[in-house]
Amino acid sequence: MKLLLFLFLITLFFFSCTTSASTYQHPLDPLNPSEFKLVRGIVQKTYEASPPSLTFQYIGLDEPDKALVLSWQSSNAKTKAKTLPPRRALVIARFKKHSLEITVDLSKRSIVSTKVYTGQGFPMMTFDEQDFVSALPFKYQPFIESVHKRGLNISHVVCTTASVGWYGEIKSNRTLKLQCFYTQGSSNLFARPLQGITVVADLDERKIVEYFDRFNIPVPKAEGTEYVATKQKPPFGPTLMGAAFVQPNGPGFKIDGHSISWANWEFHVGYDIRAGPMISLASIYDLQQQRYRRVLYRGYISEFFVPYMDPTENWYFKTFLDSGEFGLGQSIVSLEPLADCPANAAYLDAYFAGEDGVPVKIGNAICVFEKYAGDIMWRHTELELHDEIREVRPQVSLVVRSVSTVGNYDYIIDWEFKPSGSIKMGVGLTGILGMKGTSYTHVDQIKEDAFGTLLADNTIGVHHDHYLTYHLDLDIDGEANSFVKTNLETVRVRDQSSPRKSYWTVVPETAKTEADARINLGLKASELAIVNPNKQTKAGNKMGYRLVPGTVAHPLLLTDDYPQIRGAFTNYNVFVTPYNKSEKWAGGLYADQSRGEDTLAVWSLRNRCIENKDIVLWHTVGIHHVPCQEDYPIMPTLSGGFELRPTNFFERNPVLKSKRPKLVRFPKCNSQP
Amino acid sequence: MKLLLFLFLITLFFFSCTTSASTYQHPLDPLNPSEFKLVRGIVQKTYEASPPSLTFQYIGLDEPDKALVLSWQSSNAKTKAKTLPPRRALVIARFKKHSLEITVDLSKRSIVSTKVYTGQGFPMMTFDEQDFVSALPFKYQPFIESVHKRGLNISHVVCTTASVGWYGEIKSNRTLKLQCFYTQGSSNLFARPLQGITVVADLDERKIVEYFDRFNIPVPKAEGTEYVATKQKPPFGPTLMGAAFVQPNGPGFKIDGHSISWANWEFHVGYDIRAGPMISLASIYDLQQQRYRRVLYRGYISEFFVPYMDPTENWYFKTFLDSGEFGLGQSIVSLEPLADCPANAAYLDAYFAGEDGVPVKIGNAICVFEKYAGDIMWRHTELELHDEIREVRPQVSLVVRSVSTVGNYDYIIDWEFKPSGSIKMGVGLTGILGMKGTSYTHVDQIKEDAFGTLLADNTIGVHHDHYLTYHLDLDIDGEANSFVKTNLETVRVRDQSSPRKSYWTVVPETAKTEADARINLGLKASELAIVNPNKQTKAGNKMGYRLVPGTVAHPLLLTDDYPQIRGAFTNYNVFVTPYNKSEKWAGGLYADQSRGEDTLAVWSLRNRCIENKDIVLWHTVGIHHVPCQEDYPIMPTLSGGFELRPTNFFERNPVLKSKRPKLVRFPKCNSQP
Repeated sequence: MKLLLFLFLITLFFFSCTTSASTYQHPLDPLNPSEFKLVRGIVQKTYEASPPSLTFQYIGLDEPDKALVLSWQSSNAKTKAKTLPPRRALVIARFKKHSLEITVDLSKRSIVSTKVYTGQGFPMMTFDEQDFVSALPFKYQPFIESVHKRGLNISHVVCTTASVGWYGEIKSNRTLKLQCFYTQGSSNLFARPLQGITVVADLDERKIVEYFDRFNIPVPKAEGTEYVATKQKPPFGPTLMGAAFVQPNGPGFKIDGHSISWANWEFHVGYDIRAGPMISLASIYDLQQQRYRRVLYRGYISEFFVPYMDPTENWYFKTFLDSGEFGLGQSIVSLEPLADCPANAAYLDAYFAGEDGVPVKIGNAICVFEKYAGDIMWRHTELELHDEIREVRPQVSLVVRSVSTVGNYDYIIDWEFKPSGSIKMGVGLTGILGMKGTSYTHVDQIKEDAFGTLLADNTIGVHHDHYLTYHLDLDIDGEANSFVKTNLETVRVRDQSSPRKSYWTVVPETAKTEADARINLGLKASELAIVNPNKQTKAGNKMGYRLVPGTVAHPLLLTDDYPQIRGAFTNYNVFVTPYNKSEKWAGGLYADQSRGEDTLAVWSLRNRCIENKDIVLWHTVGIHHVPCQEDYPIMPTLSGGFELRPTNFFERNPVLKSKRPKLVRFPKCNSQP
Repeated sequence: MKLLLFLFLITLFFFSCTTSASTYQHPLDPLNPSEFKLVRGIVQKTYEASPPSLTFQYIGLDEPDKALVLSWQSSNAKTKAKTLPPRRALVIARFKKHSLEITVDLSKRSIVSTKVYTGQGFPMMTFDEQDFVSALPFKYQPFIESVHKRGLNISHVVCTTASVGWYGEIKSNRTLKLQCFYTQGSSNLFARPLQGITVVADLDERKIVEYFDRFNIPVPKAEGTEYVATKQKPPFGPTLMGAAFVQPNGPGFKIDGHSISWANWEFHVGYDIRAGPMISLASIYDLQQQRYRRVLYRGYISEFFVPYMDPTENWYFKTFLDSGEFGLGQSIVSLEPLADCPANAAYLDAYFAGEDGVPVKIGNAICVFEKYAGDIMWRHTELELHDEIREVRPQVSLVVRSVSTVGNYDYIIDWEFKPSGSIKMGVGLTGILGMKGTSYTHVDQIKEDAFGTLLADNTIGVHHDHYLTYHLDLDIDGEANSFVKTNLETVRVRDQSSPRKSYWTVVPETAKTEADARINLGLKASELAIVNPNKQTKAGNKMGYRLVPGTVAHPLLLTDDYPQIRGAFTNYNVFVTPYNKSEKWAGGLYADQSRGEDTLAVWSLRNRCIENKDIVLWHTVGIHHVPCQEDYPIMPTLSGGFELRPTNFFERNPVLKSKRPKLVRFPKCNSQP
């Protein structure tokens, strides 16, 4: 009987495994827990190995060919399930100090290809291996002595990891550097670095391979560093009043698996351990054409370059590629309802595979909410007619949000969809600054470059940059698109035809090849758009979407400096490339210790034709950050972003005939919440 | 008996007049209706004239000297009413074709000074005189014939006004041009211009002084131009769901007259017929110093330059100064509750004087509301410690909003105060485009410059710019301030001290004179701040506020072109001047037909010392506008703006100890609203 039950349970387990492994509805759905388990089983069985001898550095969806996805999308509802493209996973594993690229077919339950990567650079670091090596110093005698020498209690020391970058070394091992902090008396470890110590750990060997204790600088005091509410002392303030938000007829969006529909939009929200949220197949309903029209095939943050500006021994290497080295998806943190997202938000969970292939759940990884910010979608008051006319439409938009906490920094990543057709990408920088210890306690003591701002006693907030490079595979009403720069140029009136001496006009210029589309913004008055040269409005304007840039920064590192060679994809604010399935990561697939051989900047040098082709727009949001005292001990959010805005995509204002939502004054409530 | 009653009523009238005329609480309160009546009475009596022989072009508060206002502010509550500076009104009247500047003392009920203005340019145009001359064509036979010739019904024609600018004329009369539109079958008159007709009216003579009918172009059809909801035909959409907003413990702000306090902010909201809302004496409470600290003495939109880019006869002159010619305050429209502002808004009325001096009320002219947009004030998730820490503070801010509708365009003007110390100025452009008639119906027909975008049959949206120049009299913790450019400069590492070849560092540069502070943004990595050089943080950083620019545009007109001579205050994105009570209007006090002799650009040429002085920051938000079909027949809001953000103004994050507002899920409601 017991045996029978056991067999039954085993059967059930396999059955449920099989079932759930195939329960994806959309070809771009992220891998689900059952699929991770299946991949894990297949790979571990094939290699007869598990961590630490075989580690999964990356498991993600091996994206089906775009043609297959599009043909699936256009198939009718009945046959849709049957036209789902084959489901494959891409595995990057570390095995015997090699990086393996393994493609697993999930329906066939087998490995379909394996490649040993022989180029430069290493795959993303897992949380597990970082945790492992972070614990090594505490068993490493020289480190213990260094802590003692500083008069600190080692039980309050915590070490975190930093990628090492590349500085011209010919041979590289897969290493990282450990950064240690003191935690006694404050939760804000990043404000209290132990400076002067270099600990290099080998991630494949899982041991400390280099150690120096060069100098001793006071660890900043705990006082004034705390940010946890329960540990604060009065006076408190400022006081902000509470509020509640009610949607009497429910939210306007529907979530079906990973597909979201709202107002005139539909799109898919995927997730990847490296990229974080990925928005796919975003289409907008055209009231006039009575159909959905595709805008964005796929959009995500491709790389995120954060170079610090301190060239000294303890800091020079801090030139992070937060996506390729640490994983913006792996770093996503659970969102707190009513604080990270408003009361009317819905939440999606996310799953990634640990280094052992076991799925790890991030609850409330992504939230989706309708934003009622009090903005105005459009309006006009007309006083020239007999009766005054006043027509106002309040703005409502849909936000998809996640927060990635990469060590000290918290990055708020918003995708905002507007009924008027705009997609706004928002980036919020908050969390804790990268700070270094110093002997200074007053600016007057500083006689040479301190590489940052003195924020408090013994504490410098180091100068740095943030460059978020977005991959935006726009498909304006189809794949064949062109990139058009509409330059605004001054025309001098040379005859007597006008009392004016000048005006400006537009000179459109279609980019033929990639070289035409490498652009530094802000130097020239110009509108940049992706258009469909084969589709025009009734009046004959080419249908398109334009890039409305927000915060723009140009790199200040020398282009031949090592970090900038690796981060060369930020050399221009805009690139356009022909669609190429393999050109996904602007800093290269193997970004850790990369040497800049596989970046967007290198791909673009092939100078391929981009006219009337399936093209990808790459845009970098850049922020130079000079820390200030307000950023201490925790930073008020600093915001940036940009907008993709329809330009002659519609025949007219697409929200002209949108009725005003019932924005009611107050619901009838008989008690306070 | 009747006589007695009459005397009694007369007495009552004077008494109530006296009482209400003095019921201002704050020296910067705008003039109230009783005060307008008082001014009117005094001036009309003195000149023994009323419209049209004497017209009030401007009546506003004659600002008390800054020192008096500050000394009033710092006086104690008991003596405050007594230290109110003398109350004076500035009148600009048009009398016998002269512009008079009359200062009226309201407490003494007398004129204290009169000046006849002899320079170039004319005062703001009143609504009344514009209305008057707009009706003239309908009694003017040549115009009636022009309308007939076009086969139009004159009862559906409406004429609006346009300022004429200045194009090198030596002698100028006070004229304007009339623009006529056809209204049959659509509320959207601006989409249906009667092109080819020039009507020039003299505002002093109140008659048509020039008339041409040069050519006939089809008036665009009514079809597709309507924007009024009740006149739309299906299909409707997209559908946006309704919502309600509840603050269980009430709003967090208090309005006392024109003074507003909220969270850690207090400030005064004034109003002026020309400027619109004026924000004064904005101070923020410093939790550490336990006192309010002044940030902004006075901020408002000083001028608003809107040049169109069509040099042909019917359009070349359209180079508007919307503030100085039309009045952003006069053009404020009543806000619609639940649409222009959310449910939790409070409203302020505004009053201006008509040309006869009689007060005109704008109900709901300004709204004030707490904005809960779902943003995050600051956050951090800490995974490196034993127990996960997650601290999140949602963002709440306070918005002061008005909308000025200047003819076709609606300008949404927001002042947003954040508890973290930032003040964000938001500008939204919506309403109707400036459109011209054309014979074109398809882009392929256009063989020469059309000066705009073909939006529909016979309709071109004309290229143009918007430049909003803000007057920002920052007083960072006192009047004596300096302007510091912190340039980010690349440093080349020339020795072997670092594996890095470069980094950037900051090179601060204090502007000595006005020439050092004329800045075009975007060309150089730089942070711009107003600091108090006499106040520093404990660590020794100078306390300041920095300008975080948003949308920036550089003028494309030639600097010696007439419109740009008048709009020369936009030649730089930033100017800094020493405080000078008379330097209020960037385009000059007499902006209509001005010749650029009294602009910010001219004042700045004096190259005065601005170091450690009471200084004013001028910042221009610029937008080049290439119309697109989505802007037709009414424009989805296009947004711009900038931020003033504390930088080392506080010792630390000023919202570190702000408790999380009670953002409740849903109130208990027993019925739907």
